[in-house]
Amino acid sequence: MNGLYEGAAKSLLFTDLYQLTMAQVYLRLGIGEARSQFDVFFRRYPDYGEHQAGYCVFAGLDDLLAWMAAARLHPDDEARLRTMRDGAGGPLFDDAFFRWLREQEGMPGLTLRTVAEGRVIHAGTPYVVAEAPLGLAQLIETPVLNHLNYPTLIATRAARLRHAARGGSLLDFGMRRGPAHAVDPGTRAALIGGVDASSNTGISLRLGVPPRGTHAHSLVQAIIALGGSELDAFRAYAEVYPDDCLLLLDTVDTLGSGLPNAITVFEELRAAGHEPRGVRLDSGDLAFLSIRVAAELDGAGFKDTTIALSNQLDELTIWQILQQIEEEAPSYGIEPARLVARMAYGVGTRLITSRGDSALDGVYKLVAMERDGAWEPSSKQSDTPSKSTTPGPKALHRVYDERGRATADLVTVADERPTPDAPLHLHHPTEEASRTLEPSDMTSIEALHEVGWADGARRVPELEIAEARARREADEERLDPGVRRLMNPHIYHVSLSSRLARLKRGVTASEA
Amino acid sequence: MNGLYEGAAKSLLFTDLYQLTMAQVYLRLGIGEARSQFDVFFRRYPDYGEHQAGYCVFAGLDDLLAWMAAARLHPDDEARLRTMRDGAGGPLFDDAFFRWLREQEGMPGLTLRTVAEGRVIHAGTPYVVAEAPLGLAQLIETPVLNHLNYPTLIATRAARLRHAARGGSLLDFGMRRGPAHAVDPGTRAALIGGVDASSNTGISLRLGVPPRGTHAHSLVQAIIALGGSELDAFRAYAEVYPDDCLLLLDTVDTLGSGLPNAITVFEELRAAGHEPRGVRLDSGDLAFLSIRVAAELDGAGFKDTTIALSNQLDELTIWQILQQIEEEAPSYGIEPARLVARMAYGVGTRLITSRGDSALDGVYKLVAMERDGAWEPSSKQSDTPSKSTTPGPKALHRVYDERGRATADLVTVADERPTPDAPLHLHHPTEEASRTLEPSDMTSIEALHEVGWADGARRVPELEIAEARARREADEERLDPGVRRLMNPHIYHVSLSSRLARLKRGVTASEA
Repeated sequence: MNGLYEGAAKSLLFTDLYQLTMAQVYLRLGIGEARSQFDVFFRRYPDYGEHQAGYCVFAGLDDLLAWMAAARLHPDDEARLRTMRDGAGGPLFDDAFFRWLREQEGMPGLTLRTVAEGRVIHAGTPYVVAEAPLGLAQLIETPVLNHLNYPTLIATRAARLRHAARGGSLLDFGMRRGPAHAVDPGTRAALIGGVDASSNTGISLRLGVPPRGTHAHSLVQAIIALGGSELDAFRAYAEVYPDDCLLLLDTVDTLGSGLPNAITVFEELRAAGHEPRGVRLDSGDLAFLSIRVAAELDGAGFKDTTIALSNQLDELTIWQILQQIEEEAPSYGIEPARLVARMAYGVGTRLITSRGDSALDGVYKLVAMERDGAWEPSSKQSDTPSKSTTPGPKALHRVYDERGRATADLVTVADERPTPDAPLHLHHPTEEASRTLEPSDMTSIEALHEVGWADGARRVPELEIAEARARREADEERLDPGVRRLMNPHIYHVSLSSRLARLKRGVTASEA
Repeated sequence: MNGLYEGAAKSLLFTDLYQLTMAQVYLRLGIGEARSQFDVFFRRYPDYGEHQAGYCVFAGLDDLLAWMAAARLHPDDEARLRTMRDGAGGPLFDDAFFRWLREQEGMPGLTLRTVAEGRVIHAGTPYVVAEAPLGLAQLIETPVLNHLNYPTLIATRAARLRHAARGGSLLDFGMRRGPAHAVDPGTRAALIGGVDASSNTGISLRLGVPPRGTHAHSLVQAIIALGGSELDAFRAYAEVYPDDCLLLLDTVDTLGSGLPNAITVFEELRAAGHEPRGVRLDSGDLAFLSIRVAAELDGAGFKDTTIALSNQLDELTIWQILQQIEEEAPSYGIEPARLVARMAYGVGTRLITSRGDSALDGVYKLVAMERDGAWEPSSKQSDTPSKSTTPGPKALHRVYDERGRATADLVTVADERPTPDAPLHLHHPTEEASRTLEPSDMTSIEALHEVGWADGARRVPELEIAEARARREADEERLDPGVRRLMNPHIYHVSLSSRLARLKRGVTASEA
């Protein structure tokens, strides 16, 4: 990180060039101030090949709002942009454009309606709607997507890991392999999504979530190279951290050396009045080693020590390790549930880069333009019906059934206020199919949008990690277990209201 | 991006917590100032599943050096770190530690030997070697890896795209899907690796590489929604950018509407004395459409206009599109070579996230400790021989043959200076196998390391994108074509010198 990047990401020029060139066209046409609406949505959940997500966890909003509040056209950036030349050698942007661009500081005229950070969101729903003058709406397309796509991707992956790890402690160790300084927003998103803490020290402290960590192989290696032993290294660590002693066992030989040395040190600690924390395993068959290590620790009287695992973990690996423990532990005299309860997981690369599906395909699409005081719906047609966008200003609702479970997300025309006391017709977004929910099928319908930005300022408080986590947990509890399944999840229902379905059919027909 | 992240990435606490806790152990043991050497290397080239890299392009060094020069222990960060508690409720870090940590500003005692940014690097070679007091060497492990892994990953992917795109213009459009503000270093790496320009405006201007772009579907949609037509939209764009008019054809219907409207506007432009730039295709069968569009444009007299493609492109997609053009274009009366020469490619998600293999597994391993004035080799053993590290202080050399081709990278003991005038024994890094190069097989041997950081300051000039690109191009020209192959590349030879092989066998034997 250096000054080069620092200013760049807080600039109004943190966007794609074509947003600027298009904005200039709108200005010349006199439609830069025409009001427009753009929807933010993704078409498909992350798919990691052998497994896929059944829902996403929304994150990144706070970062986006912070950018909106801070973004300026710095004089240096303006000077650089003024050097851009068109094909004939003249200036690419004129003075009127620069005047307009400077005026966009503070995002005048923008209203952002959005779901809250940490909430569960689904494919095909407009989880953010931007209503703004056309030029500004265009300018912010790229920063909106940039600030939301990656954090939502990582929060979603963390939620899956949280599910696989059951109650076990879950730690983000991804900093060294993650995408440069984006590991900081990545860590924040992982915390929202369900990791308990991160090794990433600076950002964790700033977020008020104390960082966590153990020690590396190098500690043992260095002390050996200087004439000591693994036992010396463990003792040195225990002496400095007698009440936080978690030892890495596999620098020399996990079962032959690391474990007996750790038990020696643990006994010394206990004799001195301290309780050891536990051990970490970083190579080999982690399920088998967990059982063997647990048996030895139990035998030595350290039944409550943590057994932490790391090494290319993801949700399926954790799930399989826990399955194997349930099957094999009893034959070693270990009760599986007790072992599972003492496990912890350090996840790195596969979380911070969302390995297997490294991008969320969130898009930002024009759905309406104001014309003569009314909203004119707009949509991009496609040969593939599922890729056609749904036109018109919208609202987003969630329907709950008598068990308190979320049964469907309902996308409506913006001014609709569906209630559970009348039959509700749910239309498939792309096919000619519908079903009806009777009042007996519903207990409540929740409007999911709130105003995130209006009148030049953010309208929601700054993010509290704990609140976003609580929202996620509450939403997850209201999901059908089939939707939360790690593999082949049940597809959650996303439907259009009758009015919106009619509007979509009308626009499609008139454009065909 | 906001203040939260800005300071965090320039802090000495931009590291994993365990680097700090280990450093405190070293201080207590009195070995914090013991000199150590750590190698940076990766074990395997990126593997995207159906295709894999045969080499990598080194990037990120300049960002790392900038962090080293700027990293401070800010008072706020120190205050936050001082709040950390051990298991007994006492302070986790003591005053001596904080004194030491502040002293690490400027990286005292660190010497970084490194290959130059833009150069081709190979699996299993120490492309960076850090020699430093043990505490500092440990502290910087995470920032070293963080600053190098992601840019090297992206530069490598860009180089593959460059290869697939042949001479065509190659543009980075990945900002909206990339990892938050890491799209800025990502764009820089992509430029080093071979893209011609990026849509990412702010960072491109700061790097002195003018950004590029066209227009989006929303331009056409908005004008239609306000009562106009696609032709009106194209005319409006052409009027503002008469000498840079590149039109997106697929908002309504590529061949039925977009193309004829574009030709109409192109004819009007030419009549007014301007030459149109070209068209962009963003959906459908891009190979087939390219041929059809080229035929129509040729027929209308626009033989030199660019045909730009976008939509989930990667190196294999581009390669297949060009194959298809070579096979099918003649039957439409189009000469394939002429069509290929006018193509351009906008690549997004798959470049900026390295989709398919989203992380480089670069590691930072202790290889030696100074003891009684001599280097004591150290290595981490593993049950898997290929995962065992090679101990000892090292240098890195590249051997060229009589064609000027790089035939092997040779890892040696640090003080070895191999020359091409004596037989050279090359040892397999993990197996008992060797071969000998005779003087007639070699024309030169290049030492690849230079000093990147020493005596508290960077020792290489700030990065110039053009220089790094030139280094990459020169190195690529000296690679065997088999190593550059997009699928199943020939494995480049990486060997140990006889002295280093003997040292590795000795350490392994003594630890076994």
